[in-house]
Amino acid sequence: MAETFTPGKVKQKVVVLAAHPKGMVKESDMRVEEQEIDLAVKEGSGDVVVKVLDISLDPYYRELMEEEDSVFGLPMFKIGQPLCGGLVGKVVLSANPEFSVGDFVFGHGNFSDYTIFPKAQGLRKVDPSVPLSYYLGVCGMPGLTAWAGLKLLGKPKAGEQVYVTAAAGAVGQIVGQLAKAYGCRVVGSAGSDEKVKLLKSEFGFDDAFNYKTEKDWNSALTKYFPNGIDIYFDNVGGRMLDEVLNHINTDARIPLCGAASQYNVDKSEWHGLRNAFNLIGKRAHMYGFMVAQFNSHAGEFFEEVSGLIKEGKIKVKEDVTEGLHNLPAAFVGLMKGANVGKAVVRVSN
Amino acid sequence: MAETFTPGKVKQKVVVLAAHPKGMVKESDMRVEEQEIDLAVKEGSGDVVVKVLDISLDPYYRELMEEEDSVFGLPMFKIGQPLCGGLVGKVVLSANPEFSVGDFVFGHGNFSDYTIFPKAQGLRKVDPSVPLSYYLGVCGMPGLTAWAGLKLLGKPKAGEQVYVTAAAGAVGQIVGQLAKAYGCRVVGSAGSDEKVKLLKSEFGFDDAFNYKTEKDWNSALTKYFPNGIDIYFDNVGGRMLDEVLNHINTDARIPLCGAASQYNVDKSEWHGLRNAFNLIGKRAHMYGFMVAQFNSHAGEFFEEVSGLIKEGKIKVKEDVTEGLHNLPAAFVGLMKGANVGKAVVRVSN
Repeated sequence: MAETFTPGKVKQKVVVLAAHPKGMVKESDMRVEEQEIDLAVKEGSGDVVVKVLDISLDPYYRELMEEEDSVFGLPMFKIGQPLCGGLVGKVVLSANPEFSVGDFVFGHGNFSDYTIFPKAQGLRKVDPSVPLSYYLGVCGMPGLTAWAGLKLLGKPKAGEQVYVTAAAGAVGQIVGQLAKAYGCRVVGSAGSDEKVKLLKSEFGFDDAFNYKTEKDWNSALTKYFPNGIDIYFDNVGGRMLDEVLNHINTDARIPLCGAASQYNVDKSEWHGLRNAFNLIGKRAHMYGFMVAQFNSHAGEFFEEVSGLIKEGKIKVKEDVTEGLHNLPAAFVGLMKGANVGKAVVRVSN
Repeated sequence: MAETFTPGKVKQKVVVLAAHPKGMVKESDMRVEEQEIDLAVKEGSGDVVVKVLDISLDPYYRELMEEEDSVFGLPMFKIGQPLCGGLVGKVVLSANPEFSVGDFVFGHGNFSDYTIFPKAQGLRKVDPSVPLSYYLGVCGMPGLTAWAGLKLLGKPKAGEQVYVTAAAGAVGQIVGQLAKAYGCRVVGSAGSDEKVKLLKSEFGFDDAFNYKTEKDWNSALTKYFPNGIDIYFDNVGGRMLDEVLNHINTDARIPLCGAASQYNVDKSEWHGLRNAFNLIGKRAHMYGFMVAQFNSHAGEFFEEVSGLIKEGKIKVKEDVTEGLHNLPAAFVGLMKGANVGKAVVRVSN
């Protein structure tokens, strides 16, 4: 990869927001444009130009496509402007003493072939001894989300009963494997038989079920949790969260990580939690959280999780889509649950 | 009160459950019976007979009147059997070395003129240097509920914005006064103008409103909390909790103490929380709790709260109904919000 790089104007692909989605996001809500960009950095500016290698696809992008402000408090995507999010890449130009050409980096930037990071904001170097895409998943934001939500909020104890939804997703698969490493019994649910099989055969879940074919969730939870649920790691919100509230044990903990079931639903159609009353009698806690609040734990997290990967206690499953032009389709696929494992778009090798 | 007491059969009043209430509880769901009781204790049994002085009326009794098991996990009231709950009284017969005739005690017992405590279970002596009825309120279960929910779960910091519902009730009035003692800004809501006035003039709330006349709760919360809500001490659940979820600040804490708005509503009509999604973006926590889990903190609680009473920082307001035969009406009144302050039935002086 010792290619040479010449500053100057280049044509590149950029993924922009074409329309605010109504309900389920469609490919046509995004658009892949060819744009000219002047790749140059001004001496002393601190700016860095990164060639994008892998882009992370995350469910929360869907919220940022809305017209009104998101509940997450993050900057919204704007019509005609690039989508942006987590990515890894290689520094090709640098006016910043902390970054050299050839460095591998992680940052939040535009979904395009090249991204300029003004003053290198939010950029950090990563160690290429693990696959770079791991910094988008198990060693990155989804991994920290899983680890912090389960360990710091859920406080699992050996022998406890753990339920995780969207269990084959980027966060869910790590939650389940961490819970097993902590000695819990883990059951996951996912949206296809293929994913269910993967959870049991590859990720070591004690059990798993397909929430699309097991339509009576109350019966399913009774069957899979005869001793109730101590920790529910919630990635989906809505009706499943509501059903779980009828199956929690005393002192249950519910880290609220996401509400995937509601992202593509109009706000007026959001499911109301009818069983929240149970939280009182069960002395149960619900913890909303955002991964950024745990950034100060990133070192501790990386040490533990990279160690578990090396020991083979955490296995990694990625769902890689080749080519930036396929990003819109891959994102719609993620929203429909078509991916198996962490969704990544490979822009360049 | 140095009356003499003779063991033997006596006629006494007993309040029993007559019917499982449908919707709002009615006086006829309870019945005051005259029953004969043999007041005697067997040597070595450990039993204690208590003459009941004051009975505590608490909203959670309503849940225990239901036909199906309560979400609280407590023994349910049964048709034809006595209601029971918190009371203070005086020991009149004792076969227990830890209790002497004349001791003032607190316990959970039947709502009758006399109550037998087998093996003195749950009975404890109280110091009559404060009014005995305080052990039913500010120095008892409602006080511990307020203190533990606000201090141990809500973790208030000076300058934070605190909202409490049912603010003139036994728990709410203490929550508000404690929050003021901790340097917070406190707004309460209650169901009558008289109560609202009391909150501001007597209990030192920064502001208060009547939730029955301020019908647009969203606007009310915007008006009374221009800087959002850091702690919501929830005594009512339902739609108000849902509205509050649109007004919480980052890192808000919501101790869930009760759901008075739902007690007299059929389960099928329970309000679903549509805004629980906001918990994620606001990194907010909801803490269900039951006061019994904090019993080990009772000493610390009593020291702090009795100190604040002596300093005049906590004022006590009771709503006393005279006579056991008036208990059913007083309980219906409590459920309809007619009481101002801690509801007590005075059985005997």
